[in-house]
Amino acid sequence: MANNAAQLIIGDSHTNSDLYYATRFVVGIPVIYLNVDGEKVLLVNNLEYGRAGDEAKVDSLLSTTPYEEKLRELGRPPSMAALLDLFLQERGIKRLLVPASFPLGYAERLREFGYEFEVSPDPFIPERIIKTPEEIASIVEVQGYAEEAMGIAAELLRSADIRDGYLWGGDTQITSEIVRVEMQRFLLEKSCEASAIIVAGGDQGADPHHRGSGPLPAHETIIIDVFPHSTTNLYWGDMTRTFVRGDPTNAVKKIYQTVLQAQEAAFALIRNGTPGNEVHEAVVGHFKECGYENGELNGKKTGFIHSTGHGLGLDIHELPRVGRQTEPLLANQLVTVEPGLYYPGTGSVRIEDLVVVTTDGCRNLNRFPKELQL
Amino acid sequence: MANNAAQLIIGDSHTNSDLYYATRFVVGIPVIYLNVDGEKVLLVNNLEYGRAGDEAKVDSLLSTTPYEEKLRELGRPPSMAALLDLFLQERGIKRLLVPASFPLGYAERLREFGYEFEVSPDPFIPERIIKTPEEIASIVEVQGYAEEAMGIAAELLRSADIRDGYLWGGDTQITSEIVRVEMQRFLLEKSCEASAIIVAGGDQGADPHHRGSGPLPAHETIIIDVFPHSTTNLYWGDMTRTFVRGDPTNAVKKIYQTVLQAQEAAFALIRNGTPGNEVHEAVVGHFKECGYENGELNGKKTGFIHSTGHGLGLDIHELPRVGRQTEPLLANQLVTVEPGLYYPGTGSVRIEDLVVVTTDGCRNLNRFPKELQL
Repeated sequence: MANNAAQLIIGDSHTNSDLYYATRFVVGIPVIYLNVDGEKVLLVNNLEYGRAGDEAKVDSLLSTTPYEEKLRELGRPPSMAALLDLFLQERGIKRLLVPASFPLGYAERLREFGYEFEVSPDPFIPERIIKTPEEIASIVEVQGYAEEAMGIAAELLRSADIRDGYLWGGDTQITSEIVRVEMQRFLLEKSCEASAIIVAGGDQGADPHHRGSGPLPAHETIIIDVFPHSTTNLYWGDMTRTFVRGDPTNAVKKIYQTVLQAQEAAFALIRNGTPGNEVHEAVVGHFKECGYENGELNGKKTGFIHSTGHGLGLDIHELPRVGRQTEPLLANQLVTVEPGLYYPGTGSVRIEDLVVVTTDGCRNLNRFPKELQL
Repeated sequence: MANNAAQLIIGDSHTNSDLYYATRFVVGIPVIYLNVDGEKVLLVNNLEYGRAGDEAKVDSLLSTTPYEEKLRELGRPPSMAALLDLFLQERGIKRLLVPASFPLGYAERLREFGYEFEVSPDPFIPERIIKTPEEIASIVEVQGYAEEAMGIAAELLRSADIRDGYLWGGDTQITSEIVRVEMQRFLLEKSCEASAIIVAGGDQGADPHHRGSGPLPAHETIIIDVFPHSTTNLYWGDMTRTFVRGDPTNAVKKIYQTVLQAQEAAFALIRNGTPGNEVHEAVVGHFKECGYENGELNGKKTGFIHSTGHGLGLDIHELPRVGRQTEPLLANQLVTVEPGLYYPGTGSVRIEDLVVVTTDGCRNLNRFPKELQL
């Protein structure tokens, strides 16, 4: 708010979590939000006005209708930018502070009307990076559902028969899709969406962003990564386990133990004040010490090929990052801790928990056991 | 592509349908897409490179890794904008054509590097507005699931007992939530997400964006609006029916018939070449003729308070609009036709079908019966 720039968001709460954070208003169409010297102002059209009155936590709720009428009187076309121009004129605002994601189209029109823009560094709403007790409670709830869904998946794999190197439930071959839908069915009852659950068997797991498809192999690693999004409180959860139904090779057992140790090493370092990169480097260092180098096989990167973790809240990926960034972690931040090793042809393992950073350590929100073999 | 401006998108396929349309690559993190004189170029990081090679329909797939290495050599920080700068330098590109939604943050950095921006009018990819046979087949599939889900909801209401003015299934009071979850459960089996299904009883239905909650009333209107999104083909469906379980009032029966007639009037006009506003005005005119005026009751707008329809495809709301816009509808466009009348205290009715515009009329993708009373 330096130099009296007003904070501005134009967006809907599904694609713009800052808007939801600032207003607590769930809205599917773009609305205008401003923070003018600490006064939260929301401009919505008539269709949303009644609901916004009940739900939005703002200081001033305005309907766009009077502005639309004034634009008509003035003979100006009724665009979002023109509406906003009228409001900004009323308040004498000339400078706008916007997030990096602010749409260029609106910025160009408003510049034509004489406004100056300043792009905010991330995060746009700095408070978001530290979670309130209410936010932590929301995330704990969702993470609990993630654990229950993981239990359903583990039970499906555990009870599977092994025939011809694949998993079977009676006469039905167990696929990634079947496991995913069973987890989704449970999460639906808890009002959570989880369309992109990863259930990746064998070499599919070597690509951390492969959702997984088709028959699940016995005796090979199966990575299950579930990140439910509550449609009621709008917060995310996120966890990963790696299983083998049948007999893991010694190589896979050793990879699993090494990933588990790396995660423990990360937990031991996380506390208020620890720079994120120290945590990441401890994981990287542990893998190197154990002889797990990064490399390339048939054009695919192998080894530890992503960062150690990320913040989470109203977005599945938020600040802080636990990677190369040197910023210190702070109490009441939430971060995932998800080391992994990926070796196509051998096996791929990722283990992910979610922790709350505390003044003297971290509190793990996961209790789900870490057992490789089912 | 005038003046050799290269088309540019930076985004992920979940929030940027243009990116998915152009590349057919499903990716959850931001990637760089360019159309350089007709050559489709995709720049992705190493994590996505393997999968992009299998899935992305582009002419040139590039890894960001060599650019990251070059930035390190040059001592430049490895941002998206800096990566892109190196690529654009290689190709001698100076001018960029971007969608209105293009993030201002990237635009500002690239401007500092000397690039000029042109904001494209909507639609950014004009082909998207006319659907191919494959796209229509995808939407027909999803719309079929919407109809089946509507059947489940109708059956739930039809078989309900009426006690004390509310709907009951045995000892369980039937709520908006119960109906929604039953529909979602079915849609999940069809790999469709539908978190925001509207099941709005009584006066809740008078607010077209109210999702609906709590016990469903007997003898009053219940609006059910389902818009599933396929997680496999990524297309949307959209339909609405209005029901009364029990005995509708004569006022509600008359509103229902009037909305139905308005929809028929719209169907009769829709064909290649008809301006969208003619269709909308026919609906508005019919309501006026029948004496249904727009007004206001306790600060809420009443009557026909939204437009007649909207295009649909990879986004739930796409061009063309069927409202005040004068552009002609074109063959193989898909639009919803969803007249409605909203009178709190009396009843609210919306009936929505999805049609394909043809050279001599329109083809309705819905078969679900239009019967008010269950």
